Amino acid sequence: MTGIVERHPSPVAPVVPRGGVFTPLGLDESRLSGGFWGERQELNRSAIIPHALHWLERAGWTGNFDHAAAGAKYDHRGMEFADSEIYKIIEAISWDRARSGPDDVLDAALDQLVDRLAAAQDADGYLHTLFGRAWQRPRYSDPSWGHELYCFGHLLQSAVANARAGANPKYLQVAIALADHVCVMFGENGLRTVCGHAEIELGLVELYRLTGELRYLDQAVLFIDRRGAGTLPRIEYGSAYSQDDIPVREATVLRGHVVRALYLSAGATDVAVETGDTDLLRVLETQWANTVATRVYVTGGMGSHHNDEAFGLDYVLPPDRSYCETCAGVASIMFSWRLLLATGKSQYADLIERTLYNVLAAAPARDGQAFFYANTLHQRSMSEPAPVNADGLCLRGSSSGREAWFEASCCPTNLARTLAGLGALWATKDADGVQIHQYGSSSVDTVLADGRRISLDVETDYPNSGTIRITVRESPGAWTLALRVPSWAGGATVSVNGVAEAAEPGVASVTRPFAAGDTIVLELPMEARFVYPHHRVDAVRGCVAVQRGPVVHALESVDLPDGWSTETTVVDVSKPPLANGDGVRVHLSAADLPVRPFPYSADVADVTPSLAASAEVALTPYYDWANRGPSTMRVWIPTGAGD
Amino acid sequence: MTGIVERHPSPVAPVVPRGGVFTPLGLDESRLSGGFWGERQELNRSAIIPHALHWLERAGWTGNFDHAAAGAKYDHRGMEFADSEIYKIIEAISWDRARSGPDDVLDAALDQLVDRLAAAQDADGYLHTLFGRAWQRPRYSDPSWGHELYCFGHLLQSAVANARAGANPKYLQVAIALADHVCVMFGENGLRTVCGHAEIELGLVELYRLTGELRYLDQAVLFIDRRGAGTLPRIEYGSAYSQDDIPVREATVLRGHVVRALYLSAGATDVAVETGDTDLLRVLETQWANTVATRVYVTGGMGSHHNDEAFGLDYVLPPDRSYCETCAGVASIMFSWRLLLATGKSQYADLIERTLYNVLAAAPARDGQAFFYANTLHQRSMSEPAPVNADGLCLRGSSSGREAWFEASCCPTNLARTLAGLGALWATKDADGVQIHQYGSSSVDTVLADGRRISLDVETDYPNSGTIRITVRESPGAWTLALRVPSWAGGATVSVNGVAEAAEPGVASVTRPFAAGDTIVLELPMEARFVYPHHRVDAVRGCVAVQRGPVVHALESVDLPDGWSTETTVVDVSKPPLANGDGVRVHLSAADLPVRPFPYSADVADVTPSLAASAEVALTPYYDWANRGPSTMRVWIPTGAGD
Repeated sequence: MTGIVERHPSPVAPVVPRGGVFTPLGLDESRLSGGFWGERQELNRSAIIPHALHWLERAGWTGNFDHAAAGAKYDHRGMEFADSEIYKIIEAISWDRARSGPDDVLDAALDQLVDRLAAAQDADGYLHTLFGRAWQRPRYSDPSWGHELYCFGHLLQSAVANARAGANPKYLQVAIALADHVCVMFGENGLRTVCGHAEIELGLVELYRLTGELRYLDQAVLFIDRRGAGTLPRIEYGSAYSQDDIPVREATVLRGHVVRALYLSAGATDVAVETGDTDLLRVLETQWANTVATRVYVTGGMGSHHNDEAFGLDYVLPPDRSYCETCAGVASIMFSWRLLLATGKSQYADLIERTLYNVLAAAPARDGQAFFYANTLHQRSMSEPAPVNADGLCLRGSSSGREAWFEASCCPTNLARTLAGLGALWATKDADGVQIHQYGSSSVDTVLADGRRISLDVETDYPNSGTIRITVRESPGAWTLALRVPSWAGGATVSVNGVAEAAEPGVASVTRPFAAGDTIVLELPMEARFVYPHHRVDAVRGCVAVQRGPVVHALESVDLPDGWSTETTVVDVSKPPLANGDGVRVHLSAADLPVRPFPYSADVADVTPSLAASAEVALTPYYDWANRGPSTMRVWIPTGAGD
Repeated sequence: MTGIVERHPSPVAPVVPRGGVFTPLGLDESRLSGGFWGERQELNRSAIIPHALHWLERAGWTGNFDHAAAGAKYDHRGMEFADSEIYKIIEAISWDRARSGPDDVLDAALDQLVDRLAAAQDADGYLHTLFGRAWQRPRYSDPSWGHELYCFGHLLQSAVANARAGANPKYLQVAIALADHVCVMFGENGLRTVCGHAEIELGLVELYRLTGELRYLDQAVLFIDRRGAGTLPRIEYGSAYSQDDIPVREATVLRGHVVRALYLSAGATDVAVETGDTDLLRVLETQWANTVATRVYVTGGMGSHHNDEAFGLDYVLPPDRSYCETCAGVASIMFSWRLLLATGKSQYADLIERTLYNVLAAAPARDGQAFFYANTLHQRSMSEPAPVNADGLCLRGSSSGREAWFEASCCPTNLARTLAGLGALWATKDADGVQIHQYGSSSVDTVLADGRRISLDVETDYPNSGTIRITVRESPGAWTLALRVPSWAGGATVSVNGVAEAAEPGVASVTRPFAAGDTIVLELPMEARFVYPHHRVDAVRGCVAVQRGPVVHALESVDLPDGWSTETTVVDVSKPPLANGDGVRVHLSAADLPVRPFPYSADVADVTPSLAASAEVALTPYYDWANRGPSTMRVWIPTGAGD
């Protein structure tokens, strides 16, 4: 058993690199104090986490550990990766503890979960409830689908969270024993393969960061370097599904299963940073750039296919059944966040913002008791409750609404751990000062490397308004406050104590000897605007979306005049969308074109609608759709009459 | 064992209803003599059928029967429905025998297959190689996925084909024993469920038609009436996947798994016709009409989703990864053909034509040694060989090219049986005369109900030209020759002995006392034309397709000037497409728009291409794409600059 050596005081945050441009702040240094995301953190604590704990028991996934510990033969419940949901909810509780302090009920739940999973660990460190017992499939016999190392990775991330949050010390010992087992089994002289689903890499690097044990980093490097050698068995979806088609260092764009791809690139970023591998970092920046340029929905969602939960080819971004898995949103943020810390480029925070407001915020129901698994951009029929199995778990493929729990329920726990740790995404520091990346009512209290303490408060009801007011509480003389100006925010201004200057999209930096009470105001223009797709996005040619600030809006049937349909409505782009306190409105017309016997004709008049009634109609923020009863919805609205 | 009672001399054809508007002709009465489809029938005999026989052995699917007969425990090879491929290839050989006469090699292959499957039949008539033995899953334990009744249905269809073609008499005894088993097991007092995949209904009705045994019809009625009661277990894709969501008589449109839906409706049509149930027939006509109006690709292909091989909702017809399974084309023809026989409406023959030229003709490679499983309308990357398993079988989901054989290899054998029986689709008769539905070099030699013998020859190189010349060889005085005028063929003419008259789309009938040597010429206008999508087909808004005659054309990268791409090309619709002996050409421009950092912008200029070089470019018939090396392809071509 390895001793734990804290190499340096480490922020209580999910990602703590030993290098890079920005240093993360701990959840005790960067706090949300209310508003859009603060409320969602409270919902997470009061509703989402308890809901997940309930379902993990009900579905029998925690029970798997008890059975495994008891030793008798048992029927494993859930998918291959059911173990990981327990780890992810422990991670969520840990970050929530770091954010808002100990809570007797949640701490007790955490301790009990740790006891139960620890009891199921084998003597050699291995810990998985579906493999390895005499009557089960052998360990590591199903690298494509078994998810063993994937589960381990989540355990490691979760145990690091638990340790940083100062919770149950027993858990880290479980993690270390497991990680040591992995290093033996998959080291230079071990099994020369990878897990079908990347994740172990992230856990190993973060455990290295916590403990300073280089062998965990070395093992992560091995996994990154091995992928793309085709060691995984051939499967129906091809080797790109698990990114085993091309070595990480040679890939130029993300492909295959979206969450696998993003976790892999996030893990590779960790490896690049920790090993000082600037070539690898450059490759990962290229992968990100090409993916964002050609394979991302306007919501920030990723994943075009249901079949293999995968990226489409370049510009294959159909709104129909766009997959945009909630976990892909989480994973996208994980990748972008690591690149932001490593490089300091604001484009990464831009994508994080887009994804936060239009994927993560969309997933949970207002009461935190149901979740989107996929986040479609076009719902043509009234969403209906999906089929559930005998345990009451939603069968994933048929879901078009938010559901309480899923057979494959990766998304709710992923959302929970992300919401709990959100504060860490809000701001960072470097030698010169503090950077604010995301906006919401919040506070920063941190100490620069040279010992200077900086405190400030951020007040705003962003994204409702674009006024972000920062008040310095404590300041050590001259330092730099860097504010991200979103890429969509042309015409922004920054005022310091009332003196305004234009601020270009990118970063607005203010360097001065701030004094307590100084006020900096960032004004972001919040006009609603039409957004047009690149010509090559075939699936939405002739359509526009509407965005206000970072929030993509949608046309939802419940807002239409009686007798209108989202399927037969066009928007007049000659009249700009209106935004005021009541939300966003656009000028629509009902497009009248009957069903024809065959939906194609050599006569364009046969297939061109006439425009009937017109009206100004409210759009709904995409994140809030499907919260007012059954509805149809579309993000992309046709602009005219069949052109 | 039931005795076989031929109730009436029956045409040697796949579908022989006892009622309906048109009477089918046997394959000995309606023959293709060359040209587009005649050549494909020869390819079927010389290449496709032998290829299938080879792979059925190689994959071990015929071997399953040998193992089952031997009685010892064995590893079943292939999918749940592997048995059915053997039945379908026997059906193909049977129809080919009826078409072109006995062949020693093929007859021997057929006899050997019948011997092997007969040896595997249980004493009570049950016959399936995957279920029911002590070490296998129990019979009927997996109604959603087990495909037992599905396989039985194909056996029955195949045995009827074999009997009508006068091949191996032993096979019909196997079928009758099996059908009797089904009637006992699933009759009024038996298991009150259905098979997840419809097909048994078709087999039972056709066996009834052959034998006159009403219990087979009654059992088919039971299966039709039971579906939609939700007796099948809940699965991920929902109950619509197996059409178990709504009773057949209440459904207004096809939905769920495409082949299941079409086989079910085809079987229900058989039931409606045999029971004189005009209400049910009307429902099925409505299902067909609504499906064709809103859920069919311009190729006639059906099926929008890979995930569940299913119909999309109305107007969800994305060309990207459009599924359009080859088997769905076969199934669509089966449904339309039954409705055509029942109602006499030419719209059904129109869809058959569209599907023949643009789905079935597309599936096989020119050499008959490889097949499309899915028939996409847009191929963005060079198609690559798909992954194969250890047996050399293509793993379905990743295929974007024609492949030799598939793990789920339903399509090649379905194609083979359809091609062999194609003559039956060409013409019919009624009390007044003969109807010609499809055009190609062919002949009709038949006897009307009143004993009058009619013979005629059809000469044409359709669809290369639109001139169809019919010469009467034998005529019994006044009768009616009815010629389908395709719905796309405005401006057609019919000439009788040189005297031309206009012929509207629909049916052109000529009634007169024809004499031997009389010549009737149907002239169909063969100008190439742009085809526009209905406004509600979002996925191809702002695009056109090009059709000449029944043949949809496609833009294939191998025809583009150097440096152009199918992904960055627009078509000038102000210049009509040109068609001459060299094929179809359109006026294209290269659309220049760089990759942007993010594929959406509030500034329309950012996402609008400029038009660079222009050129006249040849299109390829869609059915012939991917036959000239790796290529990209699109059926729907954008018309302009991002409008």
